[in-house]
Amino acid sequence: MFRPEIKVVDCSIRDGGLINKWQFSDEFVRQTCQALSDAGVDYIEIGYKASTDMFNPKEYGKWRFCADDIIARTLRGLDIRSKLSCMVDIGRVRDEDILPASDSIFKMIRVACYVKDIDKAIQQAEQVMDKGYETTINIMAVSTNLEKDIDEALDEIGKSRVPVVYLVDSYGAMYCEDITFLVKKYQQFMPGKTIGIHTHNNCQLAYGNTIQAIIDGANMLDASIYGIGRGAGNCPIELLLSFLKNPKFNIRPVLKVIQDQYLPLRAKIEWGYIIPYMISGMLNEHPRTAIAWRSQKNPDDYVGFYDTLTTPEVLP
Amino acid sequence: MFRPEIKVVDCSIRDGGLINKWQFSDEFVRQTCQALSDAGVDYIEIGYKASTDMFNPKEYGKWRFCADDIIARTLRGLDIRSKLSCMVDIGRVRDEDILPASDSIFKMIRVACYVKDIDKAIQQAEQVMDKGYETTINIMAVSTNLEKDIDEALDEIGKSRVPVVYLVDSYGAMYCEDITFLVKKYQQFMPGKTIGIHTHNNCQLAYGNTIQAIIDGANMLDASIYGIGRGAGNCPIELLLSFLKNPKFNIRPVLKVIQDQYLPLRAKIEWGYIIPYMISGMLNEHPRTAIAWRSQKNPDDYVGFYDTLTTPEVLP
Repeated sequence: MFRPEIKVVDCSIRDGGLINKWQFSDEFVRQTCQALSDAGVDYIEIGYKASTDMFNPKEYGKWRFCADDIIARTLRGLDIRSKLSCMVDIGRVRDEDILPASDSIFKMIRVACYVKDIDKAIQQAEQVMDKGYETTINIMAVSTNLEKDIDEALDEIGKSRVPVVYLVDSYGAMYCEDITFLVKKYQQFMPGKTIGIHTHNNCQLAYGNTIQAIIDGANMLDASIYGIGRGAGNCPIELLLSFLKNPKFNIRPVLKVIQDQYLPLRAKIEWGYIIPYMISGMLNEHPRTAIAWRSQKNPDDYVGFYDTLTTPEVLP
Repeated sequence: MFRPEIKVVDCSIRDGGLINKWQFSDEFVRQTCQALSDAGVDYIEIGYKASTDMFNPKEYGKWRFCADDIIARTLRGLDIRSKLSCMVDIGRVRDEDILPASDSIFKMIRVACYVKDIDKAIQQAEQVMDKGYETTINIMAVSTNLEKDIDEALDEIGKSRVPVVYLVDSYGAMYCEDITFLVKKYQQFMPGKTIGIHTHNNCQLAYGNTIQAIIDGANMLDASIYGIGRGAGNCPIELLLSFLKNPKFNIRPVLKVIQDQYLPLRAKIEWGYIIPYMISGMLNEHPRTAIAWRSQKNPDDYVGFYDTLTTPEVLP
């Protein structure tokens, strides 16, 4: 009783790298990729593609740039049946950084943008398609947009060749009725296109909202191992795979890599249900203020953080 | 845009005590009760009522017994506007342990039972009502029952005087469609009765499922501070209060008691999203095997636990 159209996209390395500037060990990423492939995950998104003159390679790990030759060398010898993906942010990658797909280890390049940049995103996504890649447009932070602007953006994408459009709850601020409302809107403006869902776990709703999106018809599902991702993190892939009934999925390799790699990493860098992220999610705010709060001297002063965000005269 | 019928029941001490045999300090419970009252929570369930000859008072804290005089003394001096509640398990309390409500600090006594004990539960609940208390019946572990047996139990309660019946996801095994299916069934068999919801967080769905139950019409909602509760714990009350729009609710006192009391306690005893509890939830099993696994020498051997529960020839 599964829906064969459903594809799962793991973004552990790509979204998790937002926590530690993609400073993962090679072994960590290798074990991640092998586990995900063995688990039957359709796509593994291992980073962002970006120009090395836009970010300092001494500060950011290789997964911030996703140069084909470097990544291919790092993953050499693994048996990866999942398709590899990377993401681009509008304006942070040059055309020459993207090889023709036939010369690349990547099968998919996803384009992240805000509503205001939708025309640039369409252009970028169609360029990527012309190079032979699969693509998606991931519209971030729609919980902060006026409906008329969302409608206009969706209408534009509806007229484009881009086949997949993501509903992204960047701030972890949505609940199930928001998901249903927006998925239906996406379907209405873009009949025939695949809808994707990318959630954040600020209010412990990442998995629940992903289930809701599945019920509503979303067929491309983002998740990450043990929920790793910036701030509160993402939908835990071990939960998502346990929910999907497609016999190709197997959570055992994911459990193994959690105990071997993610639990030790979680002792060094933090993500998950942490109250300041819950507060930023509840208030529909970017997690940056919560991230900053967690790095100052009283990270567990939750009331102090709450007062900072909710007292009108105190601007964070 | 809130529903005034909705009541929130905190069960931090009652359900949390299942982790540590109710060995909370007086100060911990006092701060908990004051915070919940200040937050506008309707009911505070501070333990189980039980006979001291059924459990050893040297092993179990006072909140396991909820003797009126002892609890009243412990909470003396607080300004508690919430109603106090306690729970009874079928067969673990004697009639003489329950004072007339007019002599008691408790306003509500809830009855927990399995489907098979529903007749005993109705008898117990009606006795409690006759003594002047509010009451509910909380039917545990319905995710493991045959539908015909659930129907029969609901039909019996439907004919009783018991005004509130809880849907309890004891194993944290349900998702939103299960909640909707069962809430509708409860409504169908027991028109006019209030439906309650008590969830467990094994699969990070406690809050999401509670929202779903609200949408479906449940008006009595269990939750606990920072999600404290056996195994994966319950629906976090700070999330639930942030969702409910009734202006009487205020999460700030809850945030304060989390940082002052629950975070330090969490460093000593565990609850929350821990993989063995996720596995037991996913498999619709009682958390006892996961609790036992967490207390042996390799608590983080998730694959070992998964294999134990899923390999037919290895009986746990």
